[in-house]
Amino acid sequence: MFQEKQYLQLPGPTAVPPQVLRALSQPMINHRGSEFKELFEEVTLGVQKTFKTQNTVLIFPAAGTGGLETAIVNFISPGEKVLVASIGVFGNRFAEIAAKFGVQVEKIEFEWGSAIDTAKITERLAADRDGEFKAVIVTHNETSTGVTNNLPAVRKAMGGHPALLMVDAVSSMGAVDLRTDEWGLDVVVTGAQKAFMLPPGLTFVSVSDRAWEVAKKCTNYKYYWDLASAKKYLEKGQTPYTPALPLLSGLRESLKLMHGEGLEQAFVRHSRMRDMIRAAMRALGLQLLAADEVASPAVTAVFTPPDIEANQLRKVISKKYNVVLAGGQQKLDNKIFRVGHLGWVQPLDIVATVAAIEMALMDCGYNLELGSGVRAAQQVLRG
Amino acid sequence: MFQEKQYLQLPGPTAVPPQVLRALSQPMINHRGSEFKELFEEVTLGVQKTFKTQNTVLIFPAAGTGGLETAIVNFISPGEKVLVASIGVFGNRFAEIAAKFGVQVEKIEFEWGSAIDTAKITERLAADRDGEFKAVIVTHNETSTGVTNNLPAVRKAMGGHPALLMVDAVSSMGAVDLRTDEWGLDVVVTGAQKAFMLPPGLTFVSVSDRAWEVAKKCTNYKYYWDLASAKKYLEKGQTPYTPALPLLSGLRESLKLMHGEGLEQAFVRHSRMRDMIRAAMRALGLQLLAADEVASPAVTAVFTPPDIEANQLRKVISKKYNVVLAGGQQKLDNKIFRVGHLGWVQPLDIVATVAAIEMALMDCGYNLELGSGVRAAQQVLRG
Repeated sequence: MFQEKQYLQLPGPTAVPPQVLRALSQPMINHRGSEFKELFEEVTLGVQKTFKTQNTVLIFPAAGTGGLETAIVNFISPGEKVLVASIGVFGNRFAEIAAKFGVQVEKIEFEWGSAIDTAKITERLAADRDGEFKAVIVTHNETSTGVTNNLPAVRKAMGGHPALLMVDAVSSMGAVDLRTDEWGLDVVVTGAQKAFMLPPGLTFVSVSDRAWEVAKKCTNYKYYWDLASAKKYLEKGQTPYTPALPLLSGLRESLKLMHGEGLEQAFVRHSRMRDMIRAAMRALGLQLLAADEVASPAVTAVFTPPDIEANQLRKVISKKYNVVLAGGQQKLDNKIFRVGHLGWVQPLDIVATVAAIEMALMDCGYNLELGSGVRAAQQVLRG
Repeated sequence: MFQEKQYLQLPGPTAVPPQVLRALSQPMINHRGSEFKELFEEVTLGVQKTFKTQNTVLIFPAAGTGGLETAIVNFISPGEKVLVASIGVFGNRFAEIAAKFGVQVEKIEFEWGSAIDTAKITERLAADRDGEFKAVIVTHNETSTGVTNNLPAVRKAMGGHPALLMVDAVSSMGAVDLRTDEWGLDVVVTGAQKAFMLPPGLTFVSVSDRAWEVAKKCTNYKYYWDLASAKKYLEKGQTPYTPALPLLSGLRESLKLMHGEGLEQAFVRHSRMRDMIRAAMRALGLQLLAADEVASPAVTAVFTPPDIEANQLRKVISKKYNVVLAGGQQKLDNKIFRVGHLGWVQPLDIVATVAAIEMALMDCGYNLELGSGVRAAQQVLRG
């Protein structure tokens, strides 16, 4: 049987380019030696550039969820309060991690598919006269719904409140503009397996000067995620414990690709692919979860027609066309499918994906004109 | 310039065989799909076999240190007591992690280079009439000194005390016999980058039925390291958050190699290489840190002659012969060098390493007969 290429259109893990895959196979080196130091310093600088920051960025051998835990345990002590503005599964996860570490979590939830209404943040913080909230926690790009929050608006909404602004940028960084320093983001977390075009296994955390001051007084339990320890080792070009060597070699290559393309160009590419898929789905008569103004450049959530189960459609498209789409999570399970369009993806991949969605919909009994979605995507691409 | 192969004779990271390196470069797959499920179930079974256990074994995307943290936060609540028997840096690290998580640590320290005197454990536990100690924590193979503890003797020394027996087997598993079930080891932790012949980035933790019961009542903070959550997902062939896909593909290959050789054969190979290096160092007039009875099959610590600095010798052997040896840690810094002989290493690599040590010693001004160490190693090899 012909071994088909798989269209892995997930919002992570995403496809990894061959030069990055190859870089994973470098022989091991001494992680206390000069060759490692050079590699680690080079990739740390490259990641800082991606974060648009002068802040220290620390790299941990872990999934992105580990980065979220790092943000909590280094800055928020048990019993302290945080305000989480959640618009979906990953906002809730950040809140859950905080709660698991003894933090008092106040959560403002917004309807899934919509973005944060920043007026609610202003309102809640204005009422917090004693400055009890130690952090405002937001998700930049909510992977479960395909909605991007407006971070400068969140920062503005916080006014002069002293809380740290913590951002889960796991699925946004590299696909959506994020300016750590210009926007005053205190703690930013991202991961390898999305727009960094790497396999999963690395998480990156940036820390502002203000956040370092807070960290000094934080009493929460930590060892593996201890940022101060990681920073001390970084100053010698090392890590506190054995680093994930293959992924760091891969990161060197993926940073070359990211900065070779240019971050701004990558943002344009991602937005264009979003516009293509949205135009295509609309042309097919399907309903989108997110409104245009807040639609994510990284992932698009689409409702299936009323009489077609989303998971059935996903099964057909995977089996017949080898296109892997994500499903809905929790209350959106079996109602939506999600198309990932971040990382190593180009517009023609989206055209192909749309063509497969059309055919799979038809296979499921949906009435449509083949090629009509593709045409809409092409029209967006041609501009 | 000719690109020499490097002899990476560290006690981790160790050299990775080409078929494992190649397996890292597999394209990404959906970690919620059937292909992943098959892979994850296969490698979990293979790891269980390596642990010689029917207990559940969980795999986390992290360095081995993360596995040690996992052992603490799932079983020991803040304020509870543990007894740590430490014979070096990694015993101390396990104790430090426990202390960082609010655990009361009582540490029995033994001279570096010696093993645990199990009579001390018996004595201390006999005095603990109220059963205050919730765990006895030991390092199977102390990487910093090259000493292997006798785990069945530790278990026996505990008598009927209800404390859990927790074992750091990071640098022993696969190189030294370890029988989780037969020896009654409640929690065993190991990592990828030693005798598993993988790059760093995975940690494995086994949990006995008794330990699961304890975990239910444990109040320590956890999210990333939550074993109960990992177990729940494992039952569906999944992980709670994105797994380190390339390392899992690599693990499939390295398990084939490990079980293709056979664990018992691998133990013989490691012990033989230990005997070779020890005979060689003695023939050269060098002093060994560990006594024969407790000498590790995975790593050997050697004192340099009085007027030669260990770190200078390491620099020479690295620059001139491309052999990477580990140094001494903390109070052993610059006094010893450590030769790793675990994982993908064969007897002739040890012969070559000994030859390089001889030449580097001579370069540093030490008086020896070239080939005399090599000869001693050859004699051990020929039996």
